[in-house]
Amino acid sequence: MQRPSGRAPADLRAITLTRNFTCHAEGSVLVDFGATRVICTASVEAGVPRFLRGSGSGWVTAEYGMLPRSTGSRMDREAARGKQGGRTLEIQRLIGRSLRSAVDLKKLGEFTITVDCDVIQADGGTRTAAITGACVALVDALNHLQRKKLLTTDPLRQMVAAVSVGVFQGVPVLDLDYREDARADTDMNVVMGEDGGFIEVQGTAEGKPFQRAEMDAMLDLAVAGIGRLFQLQKEALAG
Amino acid sequence: MQRPSGRAPADLRAITLTRNFTCHAEGSVLVDFGATRVICTASVEAGVPRFLRGSGSGWVTAEYGMLPRSTGSRMDREAARGKQGGRTLEIQRLIGRSLRSAVDLKKLGEFTITVDCDVIQADGGTRTAAITGACVALVDALNHLQRKKLLTTDPLRQMVAAVSVGVFQGVPVLDLDYREDARADTDMNVVMGEDGGFIEVQGTAEGKPFQRAEMDAMLDLAVAGIGRLFQLQKEALAG
Amino acid sequence: MQRPSGRAPADLRAITLTRNFTCHAEGSVLVDFGATRVICTASVEAGVPRFLRGSGSGWVTAEYGMLPRSTGSRMDREAARGKQGGRTLEIQRLIGRSLRSAVDLKKLGEFTITVDCDVIQADGGTRTAAITGACVALVDALNHLQRKKLLTTDPLRQMVAAVSVGVFQGVPVLDLDYREDARADTDMNVVMGEDGGFIEVQGTAEGKPFQRAEMDAMLDLAVAGIGRLFQLQKEALAG
Amino acid sequence: MQRPSGRAPADLRAITLTRNFTCHAEGSVLVDFGATRVICTASVEAGVPRFLRGSGSGWVTAEYGMLPRSTGSRMDREAARGKQGGRTLEIQRLIGRSLRSAVDLKKLGEFTITVDCDVIQADGGTRTAAITGACVALVDALNHLQRKKLLTTDPLRQMVAAVSVGVFQGVPVLDLDYREDARADTDMNVVMGEDGGFIEVQGTAEGKPFQRAEMDAMLDLAVAGIGRLFQLQKEALAG
Amino acid sequence: MQRPSGRAPADLRAITLTRNFTCHAEGSVLVDFGATRVICTASVEAGVPRFLRGSGSGWVTAEYGMLPRSTGSRMDREAARGKQGGRTLEIQRLIGRSLRSAVDLKKLGEFTITVDCDVIQADGGTRTAAITGACVALVDALNHLQRKKLLTTDPLRQMVAAVSVGVFQGVPVLDLDYREDARADTDMNVVMGEDGGFIEVQGTAEGKPFQRAEMDAMLDLAVAGIGRLFQLQKEALAG
Amino acid sequence: MQRPSGRAPADLRAITLTRNFTCHAEGSVLVDFGATRVICTASVEAGVPRFLRGSGSGWVTAEYGMLPRSTGSRMDREAARGKQGGRTLEIQRLIGRSLRSAVDLKKLGEFTITVDCDVIQADGGTRTAAITGACVALVDALNHLQRKKLLTTDPLRQMVAAVSVGVFQGVPVLDLDYREDARADTDMNVVMGEDGGFIEVQGTAEGKPFQRAEMDAMLDLAVAGIGRLFQLQKEALAG
Repeated sequence: MQRPSGRAPADLRAITLTRNFTCHAEGSVLVDFGATRVICTASVEAGVPRFLRGSGSGWVTAEYGMLPRSTGSRMDREAARGKQGGRTLEIQRLIGRSLRSAVDLKKLGEFTITVDCDVIQADGGTRTAAITGACVALVDALNHLQRKKLLTTDPLRQMVAAVSVGVFQGVPVLDLDYREDARADTDMNVVMGEDGGFIEVQGTAEGKPFQRAEMDAMLDLAVAGIGRLFQLQKEALAG
Repeated sequence: MQRPSGRAPADLRAITLTRNFTCHAEGSVLVDFGATRVICTASVEAGVPRFLRGSGSGWVTAEYGMLPRSTGSRMDREAARGKQGGRTLEIQRLIGRSLRSAVDLKKLGEFTITVDCDVIQADGGTRTAAITGACVALVDALNHLQRKKLLTTDPLRQMVAAVSVGVFQGVPVLDLDYREDARADTDMNVVMGEDGGFIEVQGTAEGKPFQRAEMDAMLDLAVAGIGRLFQLQKEALAG
Repeated sequence: MQRPSGRAPADLRAITLTRNFTCHAEGSVLVDFGATRVICTASVEAGVPRFLRGSGSGWVTAEYGMLPRSTGSRMDREAARGKQGGRTLEIQRLIGRSLRSAVDLKKLGEFTITVDCDVIQADGGTRTAAITGACVALVDALNHLQRKKLLTTDPLRQMVAAVSVGVFQGVPVLDLDYREDARADTDMNVVMGEDGGFIEVQGTAEGKPFQRAEMDAMLDLAVAGIGRLFQLQKEALAG
Repeated sequence: MQRPSGRAPADLRAITLTRNFTCHAEGSVLVDFGATRVICTASVEAGVPRFLRGSGSGWVTAEYGMLPRSTGSRMDREAARGKQGGRTLEIQRLIGRSLRSAVDLKKLGEFTITVDCDVIQADGGTRTAAITGACVALVDALNHLQRKKLLTTDPLRQMVAAVSVGVFQGVPVLDLDYREDARADTDMNVVMGEDGGFIEVQGTAEGKPFQRAEMDAMLDLAVAGIGRLFQLQKEALAG
Repeated sequence: MQRPSGRAPADLRAITLTRNFTCHAEGSVLVDFGATRVICTASVEAGVPRFLRGSGSGWVTAEYGMLPRSTGSRMDREAARGKQGGRTLEIQRLIGRSLRSAVDLKKLGEFTITVDCDVIQADGGTRTAAITGACVALVDALNHLQRKKLLTTDPLRQMVAAVSVGVFQGVPVLDLDYREDARADTDMNVVMGEDGGFIEVQGTAEGKPFQRAEMDAMLDLAVAGIGRLFQLQKEALAG
Repeated sequence: MQRPSGRAPADLRAITLTRNFTCHAEGSVLVDFGATRVICTASVEAGVPRFLRGSGSGWVTAEYGMLPRSTGSRMDREAARGKQGGRTLEIQRLIGRSLRSAVDLKKLGEFTITVDCDVIQADGGTRTAAITGACVALVDALNHLQRKKLLTTDPLRQMVAAVSVGVFQGVPVLDLDYREDARADTDMNVVMGEDGGFIEVQGTAEGKPFQRAEMDAMLDLAVAGIGRLFQLQKEALAG
C-alpha cells in the first residue's frame, strides 16, 4: 500500500499554527494541515444566550464555513442559497461541543466566546484542523480576558485537538488528505483532551463496514497523532 | 448503580415492530423502543436525483422529524420556523447513510426510496429506533418492487440496526431512555450490519471524556444488543 | 347514485376518538374518521402572545401538518421545503378559530393552549376530523389545568365539532372520503357548536356552482352528522 | 340599529370600476368599494404550470397583496418579512378559485393568466372587491387574446362577483366597511356566478355562532347585492 | 439625435405630485414622472430602532417595491419569492439615505418615519421619482406631527429631490424614460438638496466608460432639472 | 488637517497583490489595501445563465462576503441569518458590473467566470480593494482558458481598478481607512478603466452635502490613485 501523499501510515501532514493571523479578533489562528487551511477566530462578547442568563455560566460556540472556491470545483455560497447545509451544521455543532469540553463554563462567567472556523483552502480533514486551531484561538481569547482583568482565574480545563483516521486500501492511516479520504473505506474523526480521554469519536463506513480490530488500530493512530498535535499547540502558544 | 428504568445494564427496553401501520406507503412500520415511538414509512418513486441520472444506480434517503409535542415540553414546529434544525439534519443524514449500506444501489436501479421517520413520542434513542424500524420498512418496499416485477433481484445486502449505549454513573449501559441519557457522562450511537461490521459509531462525552476501556465495554454491549434487534427484525418480517 | 364507500348519503364513516394516545401532552387524542387518522395534542404553556400580555385573557391556537406519506403519493416535507403551504396555513387558521369559539378566553387566564393536529393517514376530511378530535384534546387540557388547581372555573363554553358535506353525482352526501371528495361538484366544511349555531361554513364549488336548495340540503346533513359527533365526543370524555 | 356608514342594511357602498388604470397589463382595473381601493391587473403569458403541460388546458391564478400603509396602522411589508402571511395566501387562493370558475380552461388553451390584486387603500371587503374587479380585468385579458387572434373562441363562461355580508348588532347587513366588520358578530363572503349559483360561501362567527335564519337572511342580501355588481361590471365593460 | 420621447435634451417629463392620494398615511403622495407612477406614503410611529433607543434621536427609513405588473412583462412578486432582490434593497437604501439628509433627526425626537415607495407603473426613473415624491410625503408627515403638537420645532432641514441623467447616442440628456434608459451608454442618478449640494451621485457606464466632460455635462443637466423639481415640490406643498 | 493614518491627502495605503494565494481556483489573488485584506478567486465554469444560453456570449459575475470577525466587532454570519444583507448585495452587484466592463463577453464564449471576494480583514475600502484584486484574478482565469486552448483570443478589453476618495475635515483625501471613513463628510467610490473612462462613480454625502468643487477635487485624486493601481496590477501580472 502506497498512500497518495507518499506518507507513512502514521504520519501527520505538515502542521502549522499561525497566531494573530488577523488583527481584530481576541484570538486569531491560521491552521494548516498540509494544504488544508482554516482561519479560526475567537470573538468575546459580554452576555450569554437566553437559556443561560442569570446562571453565572458562560458559553462557547462555533460556526463553520467554506469559501466557495476553497474546493476543487466551486460550491454555492451558503449565504446566497439562504441556508447552511446539513454538513456545515453538523461540523459546527461538533466543533462547539469539542471546545466546550476544553473550558470550565462556570469560571468563564457570563461571557460568550464564538469561534468562527472558515476554510480558505480544503484538502481533507477540515473539521479536525478547525478544532485543533480553534482551541489555540480560544486560549488566546481566554488570555485576553485575563489580561484585561475581566477574569481572575483561567477557565481553561485542558487543550483539545482532533485528527482523522481511516482505512485506506485495507491499512489504517492517519490524517487523510482529500485524495485518500475520497477512496477510503472508513473515515473516523477523533477529538481528545490532553488528559487522554475521548471527547468525540465519529466513525463512518463509506464502503464496507469496519471491524473491531480496524477500529482499535485507527484509535491507536489517533491517540499518537493527537499527542503530537498537543505538542504543536503548546509550541504555538509559547511562541 | 440503579438505572432509573430499573433495567440491568445489558437490557434492551421492550421493542416492538408493527408492520403496515399506515396504509399508503410501500413500507410502513411503527417501531417502539419502550416509550419511544417512531413511524417509519418507505416510499418508492421512479427516478433518481440529478447526480445519479443515467447511472443505472438507485438512491435511498431519509428524512426525520418530531411531532411538536412528542417531547416533555412542546418544541416549535420546524415547518413553521421555516427550517430544519441542525440536530434534525444530522440525524436524517445518519439514517440515510445507514440505510444505504443495507442496499446494493446498483441492483435497485433508478428508483428512489425515501424513508420518513417521524417521532410521535420521544423517550430517548429516537435515532436508533428510527434506523432499526426504517430498515424493516425498507425491506417491505424492496419486496413490493419485486412483487410488482419492477425488480427481478433482491437489492438487500444485509439488515442494519442500531442502539445507543452510554456510561451512566460510571457503568456502561445499553439502550438509554431519556432520564438516563440526560444524566449520562457519555452517549454513543452504534449502527451495525448483520455481517458484524460497524457502519457508524458516534460517541460523545457529555460530561467528562471517556476512556478506551469504557469505549470497549460500550461497544461490547452494543454488539450484543444489536444482535437481539436483528432477531426482532427477522421475526417482524416473518410475521 | 352509489357512493364509492357504499354508505348511505347521510352516513358518517366509523368514528373513533382515542384519548391519551401519547403520554407527554396535557391532552392527546387519536381521531379516526374512517381511514383518516389524526393525532391531536393540546399543550399548555404559561403566558400568552405579546398582543394579549397583561390583558388577563388566554389564547388557544392550532397548528396542522401531514406526515409526508400520509397520502397516496409522497408529499414534500414542509420543514424541508422551508415553509408551510397555503392549504396548511388555511386549515390551521380554521382549526384555531373553531377552538377559540369553544373557550371563554377570559376564564382561561394568561395561559396558551396550542393544539397540534398531525395527519398520519389521510382519506378525505382531515380538517373536520382534526377539529372534532382537537376539541376533545382541548377539554383534557382544560381539565388538567383545573386538576392542577391552576384554574378554578371551567373555561369551556361548549363543545365544537365539524364534518364535511358535498354534492356527489347530484346527491348531497355526508362526510366524504377521498374518492368521493375528488369527484364531488361541491365540498363544504361545517363547524358547529353544541348550542346549534354555526361557527364556520366554507363551501366551494369544485365543478359547477351550487344552488340554494343544494346548500340547504347539505346544511341539513351537516347538522344531523355533527349532532352524532357531539354524542361521540361525550362518550369519549366519559370513557 | 344604525350602521356606522349610515347606509341601509341592503345598501352597497359606492362602487366604481376603472378600466385601463395602468398601461402595461393586458387587463388593468382599479376597483373601489367605498374607500376600499384595489388595483387588479391581468397578465397573459404563453405556457402553463408543469402539471398542465401538454394537456391543452390553460390556467388562471391570482396573487394578492396590501401596500404596507393601505391600512390604518402600517403593516410589515411581506417581501421584507420574507413570506406571505396565512391571510394573504388564503385570500389569493380564494380569488384564484373564483376566477377559474369564470373561464373554460380548455378553451383558453396553454396560456396562463395571472391576476394581481394589490390593495392600495383598505376599508373592509378587500377580497370581495378584488374578485369583482379582477373578473373585469380578466375579461379584458381574454378579449386581448382574441383581438390578437391568439384565441378564436371566447373562454369566458360567465362573470363572477363577490360581496361580504354580516350580522351587525343583530341585523343582517350588506357590504361591510372596516368599522362595521370590526364589530360584527358574523362575517360571510359570498362569490357567485351570473347563472345564480354559489361559487364560494365562507361564513365565520367572529363572536357568537350564527343561526340558520341569519344565514338565510345574509344569503338573500348577498344574492341581491351581487346582482347589482354584475350590472356594474357590464356597464364598465361596455364603457 | 432625436430622443425617443421627442423631448429636448434638457427637458423633464411631465411631473405631477398629488398629495393625500390615500387616506390612512400621515403623508401620501402619488408622483408621476411621465408614465412612471409611484405611490409614496410616510408613516409615523412612536419609537425608534434598537440602536437609537434612548438617544433622543429619531429615524427615517424607506422601503421600495414594484407591483408585479408595473412593468412591460410581469415580474415575480417579491413577497411570493420570499425575498427582496438586490436592486430593490439598493434602491430603498438610497431613498432612505436621501431622506435622512432632509431631516434633523435630533429635532425629530424618538419617532420613526417609514416612507413606502410603491411603483404602480414603471417607465424609467422610478428611484428618482420616488425620492422626489417621498420628500413631499415626508414633509406632510412632519407637519402632521407639529399639528398634533407632538413636535414643537420643524425637523425639516431642506427639501431633497432627484433626477436621472444619461448619455444617449453621445448626447447628455435629462430624465430618461425606459426606452432611452435601455439604450443609453451611461445612466446617472443625482440627488440634491435645496442648498445646492450633492447628496448622492451614482453613475454607471452601461456600455462604454464615460469621460470627465460627459460627467460634467450630465451634472449640469441634473442641477438644472432638480431646480425645477424643487419648484414643483413647493407648489404641491402650497396647493 | 492631519489624517489619522498620517498619510498625505493624495497617498494610497501600502498595496499588495499576491497571486496564486489559494490553489484550486483558476485565478486567486490576495489583495491588501493597508490592513484591508480580501481574497479574490475567479472560478471558470462551462455554460452560462439561462438568459444567455445559445447567445454565444459568456458571463462574469461576482459574490462578496465578509468573515464574521473581519471587523472590529463580530458581525452575524450571513449564511446563518439566512440571507445576504442589502450592503452585501449592493457591493457584489457593483463588483460584477465593473468586471464585466473589463471583458468582451462575446469573445469569452459560453463560459461563466464567478469572482468571489471574501474579506478576511476589514479596514475601510473593501469594495475598491476587491475590484482591484478581482480584476487580476479574472485575468489569470482568462489566461488559464487560453493556456488550455479553450479560448483562442483574449477576451480582456482593459484592466479595471477602483479606489475610494472622500472629504475628511474639509480636505479631499484618497483611499480612506476605517477611521477616516467613519468621520468623513463624503465618501465616493470610483471605478475606472485603463482607457481613462469612468465605469462607476458612487458618491454619498454622509454628513453635509458636497459641492461641485469638492467633487472635482475628489475625482482628480481618484484618477491619479487609480493610475498607480493599474501600475501595481501590471507588476503583479508580470511577476
